[in-house]
Amino acid sequence: MRVILVAGTTETAKIDGISAAGATQELLAQTPSADAELLAYGSPVLTDLVPVSPSGCPTPAMVTRALREVRGFDLTTVDAGLAAPTAAPTVESGTAPGRDIREPTAVPSAETVFERSHTLGASLPDDDLLIAETIPGGTTTALGVLAALGERATVSSSLPENPVARKRAVVESALAASDLEPGDCAGDPIGAVEAVGDPVLAAVAGLVSGATERDADVTLAGGSQQLAAAALARHAGCEAALTVATTSYVAEDDSAAVRALAADLEVALTITDPGFADCEHVAMERFEAGEAKEGVGMGGALALAARADALASVRDQFRTVYDRLTGASPADSARRHEHGQGDPDAA
Amino acid sequence: MRVILVAGTTETAKIDGISAAGATQELLAQTPSADAELLAYGSPVLTDLVPVSPSGCPTPAMVTRALREVRGFDLTTVDAGLAAPTAAPTVESGTAPGRDIREPTAVPSAETVFERSHTLGASLPDDDLLIAETIPGGTTTALGVLAALGERATVSSSLPENPVARKRAVVESALAASDLEPGDCAGDPIGAVEAVGDPVLAAVAGLVSGATERDADVTLAGGSQQLAAAALARHAGCEAALTVATTSYVAEDDSAAVRALAADLEVALTITDPGFADCEHVAMERFEAGEAKEGVGMGGALALAARADALASVRDQFRTVYDRLTGASPADSARRHEHGQGDPDAA
Repeated sequence: MRVILVAGTTETAKIDGISAAGATQELLAQTPSADAELLAYGSPVLTDLVPVSPSGCPTPAMVTRALREVRGFDLTTVDAGLAAPTAAPTVESGTAPGRDIREPTAVPSAETVFERSHTLGASLPDDDLLIAETIPGGTTTALGVLAALGERATVSSSLPENPVARKRAVVESALAASDLEPGDCAGDPIGAVEAVGDPVLAAVAGLVSGATERDADVTLAGGSQQLAAAALARHAGCEAALTVATTSYVAEDDSAAVRALAADLEVALTITDPGFADCEHVAMERFEAGEAKEGVGMGGALALAARADALASVRDQFRTVYDRLTGASPADSARRHEHGQGDPDAA
Repeated sequence: MRVILVAGTTETAKIDGISAAGATQELLAQTPSADAELLAYGSPVLTDLVPVSPSGCPTPAMVTRALREVRGFDLTTVDAGLAAPTAAPTVESGTAPGRDIREPTAVPSAETVFERSHTLGASLPDDDLLIAETIPGGTTTALGVLAALGERATVSSSLPENPVARKRAVVESALAASDLEPGDCAGDPIGAVEAVGDPVLAAVAGLVSGATERDADVTLAGGSQQLAAAALARHAGCEAALTVATTSYVAEDDSAAVRALAADLEVALTITDPGFADCEHVAMERFEAGEAKEGVGMGGALALAARADALASVRDQFRTVYDRLTGASPADSARRHEHGQGDPDAA
């Protein structure tokens, strides 16, 4: 089994109030590069950044890294528009960061990225692939793509309260800027990404199409963004069995309707509860409060952990990784808890 | 322990008769990309190339891959001027392929590559690094650099008969084209690479300098090229303990004088005999006949195998990797042996 992390950025993330993945504009640009280093090395290398929200919610990369430290897996990272240097080794997909989808063209390189990723997916020797993603603002571009394809346009959020109205307004402007009505890109996945998507979606869809053509077993680890990538693959003609492995946080997000969307797309859904309830650790409490929810392969990592009966050790290792990277000792975490600094309202 | 493979190319390899790493000009350009894929995936992916000489001598990457399959290791590949696409994830060092050293400037990006690699070496979290290289034509550029620095100018070869006179003539032209006398670049390692080196040498020297500054334990896996990289690090002010781990084939190559050069540079030398003598397999016979000798971390892989008392299993796995990649069944190999197709004179 190989994990492929597709990492990139879109200027769409800079729109106020749509992403929790990074507290400032600069952090938004650096988070995917940092996530890639975290997964590859277990610590920041060139990014000098541990993505943790102001309230203490860490990047879900820490959960996936915890699985790697407990069970191990091969990793290939694909650069689908990184905006900051990373020490994580990457395969180039041939793109710059995605533009704000309210511009006429969001991803001029959509076809190149799709084709190169298709070739990579078709050429890798692995029978089993778990594809993960990291791109701040990615649920908004996913919403754009679903709308352009004419699919059920619902997505989740990395914020406890999904800013749905805000995202819909952005997507409406984005479609208008590209002279598109919802559904205009049905059967034209590259057109959908080009107009209102992001480069990560193009790369994931290409990988899925290429890998399933050689009958590899493909699981998309993630939530709404991976369902949008699956939709793109379907519109590219992929009829293979596909699974999206996500967290219970995404599945329980009614604003996202992932079950209905998965059913529309004939995609199997694996939902794993990390078992963070009643864990007295700030990181787990933030996830329980609805922050982050998913990303960087978290849902897939949890599914693999559950299948190996290793959820408890992955939880323990997640705590270790978090404390190691944030410099919090277990005692610090406990204190933080007692003093209510992990209170959802403080976010 | 992390293995860092520094992979690149130089136009110098196209000069007739100086490299065995690839039978044709096109293969020379593709071999490092293929070596990187071999180490990362165990098979060619985008390169569609298994580097094996006409006589049946495989790329030494197969030995290092065999160690990986037997013992496992973390791998980071650095792109120091690859000339062909690779599916191996890489960290960019910021360079194009090196030019023919007979041009006035061989590596215009020498400083960038050195600095970026220095930063990477200084930032990686690993306490132990084993640095490997793959660059056809690399012993000629190594000879150039040693001459420019004023060090003992002797190098080994991937050919059974070291074309020493040819290499010396090339280096003489190269120094003249850069208006240099031997020794003119003493204390100026970047100047030496810029004038008569290759981008892999700049990257390895930068990694060594950066990693030793944070007291990481650094082993350079390879022969003459890694001694040249060590010389560059010394001339950049690195006084840390350094080890070069090479094969008995390089150590026994009198034309290379690696013991004397290592002593000059105060570099410890670890020499490992793979134990291929009397192994009736074409690949091992070719190494015993003096082909390839070293490269892609082979000497370091053998040293690690020997330390873990795993030389026999690495030998077995090397046979498995070779047969898997060349499509040769053990019976084929035996037949090949009987019919003398592994004869050195056929090379």
